[in-house]
Amino acid sequence: MNETIETILKHRSIRQFKNEPLTEEQIRTIVSSAQAASTSSYIQAYTIIGVKDPVKKKKLAELAGPQSYVEENGHFFVFCADLYRHEKIGEWEKADVIPSLESTEKFMVAMIDASLAAQNASIAAESMGMGICYIGGIRNDLETVSELLGLPDRVIPLFGLAVGFPEGNSDVKPRLPMESIYHEDSYQSDEKSMKEGLDRYDETISAYYHARTAGKRSDRWTEQMAKMLSGKKRMYMKEFVEKKGFNKR
Amino acid sequence: MNETIETILKHRSIRQFKNEPLTEEQIRTIVSSAQAASTSSYIQAYTIIGVKDPVKKKKLAELAGPQSYVEENGHFFVFCADLYRHEKIGEWEKADVIPSLESTEKFMVAMIDASLAAQNASIAAESMGMGICYIGGIRNDLETVSELLGLPDRVIPLFGLAVGFPEGNSDVKPRLPMESIYHEDSYQSDEKSMKEGLDRYDETISAYYHARTAGKRSDRWTEQMAKMLSGKKRMYMKEFVEKKGFNKR
Repeated sequence: MNETIETILKHRSIRQFKNEPLTEEQIRTIVSSAQAASTSSYIQAYTIIGVKDPVKKKKLAELAGPQSYVEENGHFFVFCADLYRHEKIGEWEKADVIPSLESTEKFMVAMIDASLAAQNASIAAESMGMGICYIGGIRNDLETVSELLGLPDRVIPLFGLAVGFPEGNSDVKPRLPMESIYHEDSYQSDEKSMKEGLDRYDETISAYYHARTAGKRSDRWTEQMAKMLSGKKRMYMKEFVEKKGFNKR
Repeated sequence: MNETIETILKHRSIRQFKNEPLTEEQIRTIVSSAQAASTSSYIQAYTIIGVKDPVKKKKLAELAGPQSYVEENGHFFVFCADLYRHEKIGEWEKADVIPSLESTEKFMVAMIDASLAAQNASIAAESMGMGICYIGGIRNDLETVSELLGLPDRVIPLFGLAVGFPEGNSDVKPRLPMESIYHEDSYQSDEKSMKEGLDRYDETISAYYHARTAGKRSDRWTEQMAKMLSGKKRMYMKEFVEKKGFNKR
């Protein structure tokens, strides 16, 4: 196994960081790595905001949870889907780009582009001995995040990425059995074998929590999912993204 | 610079592969790497289909372009956003998960999850000396792709990933200047400086094409984007994803 794959496989989210800000050079390396990711038709439909202002970080930490590690880390990035630049290009080049920008297709493209870039950033940071944590919690209130970061229309924040040198450690969390998520030639939708795979996984997860909480927790994965998905979370999202000019047609 | 960052920074898409199928072990390493990526609230909302059947590969290659490298490669993956498993979990656990599954928020979560996994797969493959190419072209006809791969509702193919050992080489394509996509604390929407950055980039890109085509091509990036975005491509997407149970509320 090479070093890169080793880095990838030992990923675990880090939620406590040393008080050691990243250097400008480290930030540049991480951003260059993000930019090196593939991009659909060369569109590069994302922007990354690095948040240094302590007031803004504090505010983001509150609305995301509160989650202290959004405030206390080596650096905090916000990855945004961005078609604002492309709207401007349409004006300069006198091209009618609006229907395209407002399509669900381009909403997907921008989200995929930003996510590929973010994962490159994560792997680059982890390869330098840093830890990372994705922060979906900023989606609790994207209107406030957008104001805070001065985002124009056609730009939406997707998630944060806290980066820094780990304080303490955490465990690698077991993933679904490979047979559950990787199929060859055809999707395996047979309910019985799907359930068998998930039953086995439930046992693994239950044991994982049991061991790590001295028996206080032993929830199954399917139970967790059912609970999490019963909460109607962030149901404002459809309206929000449309208001910002995405996913309209 | 460490090996991982070197791998990341030298990425270029590969569109011609040696006739050398990946081994089962290589496929497992790539899929394990994909699975190690971060996942929103542990949801793991994606499925990867490995396509080996030559008839299916041929069909995918046709509808994606045609693009010969969809058919001729070491292995072809299709990354799908997947909430089908979670619908079943809702039934088994008697939880009302449907409003959540149909939300734009969860459409985003599934897309981001799948993309983070795909980028891990790509970096893992590249670290083993393979090349990759993302295939957005499968989105030309997702209905046919879905039938071909036997996808149930609540599963949508997002993109393909062709992987294999490169035949020949290609160049690293210059990305936007870092100042254009990375801002600190606030989005830099000032039109004048945005235009200056893109003008400089246009010169770079124009020279890049000029050098590589013996002067036959010298298009600017902004020109490319305006042209590409004037085409109203894949406008069926909104209806398609809703029909499949995503992005409905």
